Amino acid sequence: MLESKEWKHIFKLDPEKEISDENLELVCESGSDAIIVGGTFGVTFDNTIDLLARIRRYAIPCFLEVSNIEAIVPGFDHYFIPLVLNATDANWILQPHHEAIKELGSTIPWEHISTVGYTVLNPHSSVAELTNASKNSSLEDVLAYGRMAQHLLKLPFLYVEYSGAYGDVNMLKVCYQRLKREGDLHIFYGGGIRNREQAIEMSQVADTIVVGNIIYEDIQLALSTIVKNKSNG
Amino acid sequence: MLESKEWKHIFKLDPEKEISDENLELVCESGSDAIIVGGTFGVTFDNTIDLLARIRRYAIPCFLEVSNIEAIVPGFDHYFIPLVLNATDANWILQPHHEAIKELGSTIPWEHISTVGYTVLNPHSSVAELTNASKNSSLEDVLAYGRMAQHLLKLPFLYVEYSGAYGDVNMLKVCYQRLKREGDLHIFYGGGIRNREQAIEMSQVADTIVVGNIIYEDIQLALSTIVKNKSNG
Repeated sequence: MLESKEWKHIFKLDPEKEISDENLELVCESGSDAIIVGGTFGVTFDNTIDLLARIRRYAIPCFLEVSNIEAIVPGFDHYFIPLVLNATDANWILQPHHEAIKELGSTIPWEHISTVGYTVLNPHSSVAELTNASKNSSLEDVLAYGRMAQHLLKLPFLYVEYSGAYGDVNMLKVCYQRLKREGDLHIFYGGGIRNREQAIEMSQVADTIVVGNIIYEDIQLALSTIVKNKSNG
Repeated sequence: MLESKEWKHIFKLDPEKEISDENLELVCESGSDAIIVGGTFGVTFDNTIDLLARIRRYAIPCFLEVSNIEAIVPGFDHYFIPLVLNATDANWILQPHHEAIKELGSTIPWEHISTVGYTVLNPHSSVAELTNASKNSSLEDVLAYGRMAQHLLKLPFLYVEYSGAYGDVNMLKVCYQRLKREGDLHIFYGGGIRNREQAIEMSQVADTIVVGNIIYEDIQLALSTIVKNKSNG
């Protein structure tokens, strides 16, 4: 069982990016709730299994955000399958999932897999370009994607993905509060968190904040983003 | 609560097609488990509400297969929201759902709504042309769409839609048996059932058979398709 209700903070590591053993230890022993391994480009079986093996020296739970079928490495605690709710290129909605299920067939361990609805809100991000994500990012748009995840698709997770940019906290707060009133969708926020103040702020608009890029730029700032007691401010 | 486990046979009425009061009574009093109102083209608020009002003279449960936001009429027992799993035109996957949820917002009665995964397998049907459905229809393809519905999206319903053509019963039987072993996805079959023998045959490959066009061509043949005791042959 996933202890997802306990997740306040997750670090995201990109297999394509280099991280020293020292910094990896700081990340893994930081008190963060989990690590997600994932990236948009350049994720391969080899760099994914290498990173997993290094993370496995530590006790922290480790999940794979599956970005392509070649890079599915056994041995993660859980697998997140992205479904980009606002992709406008059909090749990035259900077609890759169909191909993967067709190829892997009855061998897929579904009990270790969760589907995550993504709403990709930074139009300049790699993932937005790749999936040709719709540029609708008003409160009404994001709320409708959230309701689609929560009610229409009954997904367990929604990932509000600003990937490289810092989100509109006021808009996201309204959206989060409304969605939480309507059900128990678990909401991740990721994008642009580079210091403790931002981490505290975004902890008000999501159940779990995901911190990635800053790990590779300033490890101490990255460690400062671990906010365990959720602020309700 | 939907008594979907009890549904063996459903008649499908198209609001755009004419049906006499006499034939409508025969359909509604036939012993079929329910009526689905739906069609691909020409479904409007007016013709939908007219048909609903006529069906409501009878006790049979009546569901709406929602094909466009303008034709959502209140008063049905339940609403099926199609999600065409093998559409290759992104405008027909999640975009119309997003627009509808955005427009209707918090007023949607989600407890009366179920999402139905469709796999559209007759490439010459209107719905296949409209959604530019993928022409992949091997056992492996259909099974993968079923597993996508069952495991990845955890949908309650899969609709194997041959719309106007009669399906490949041997392939569908294998697919049905495998999917039922893996979970409790409820499977509809629709397409080309025009007599009792076909109804009995297709009752082996689905939990519920849906009979439509023949109603408008030969009402007695249509009535003969009601197979209540499922054959396991």
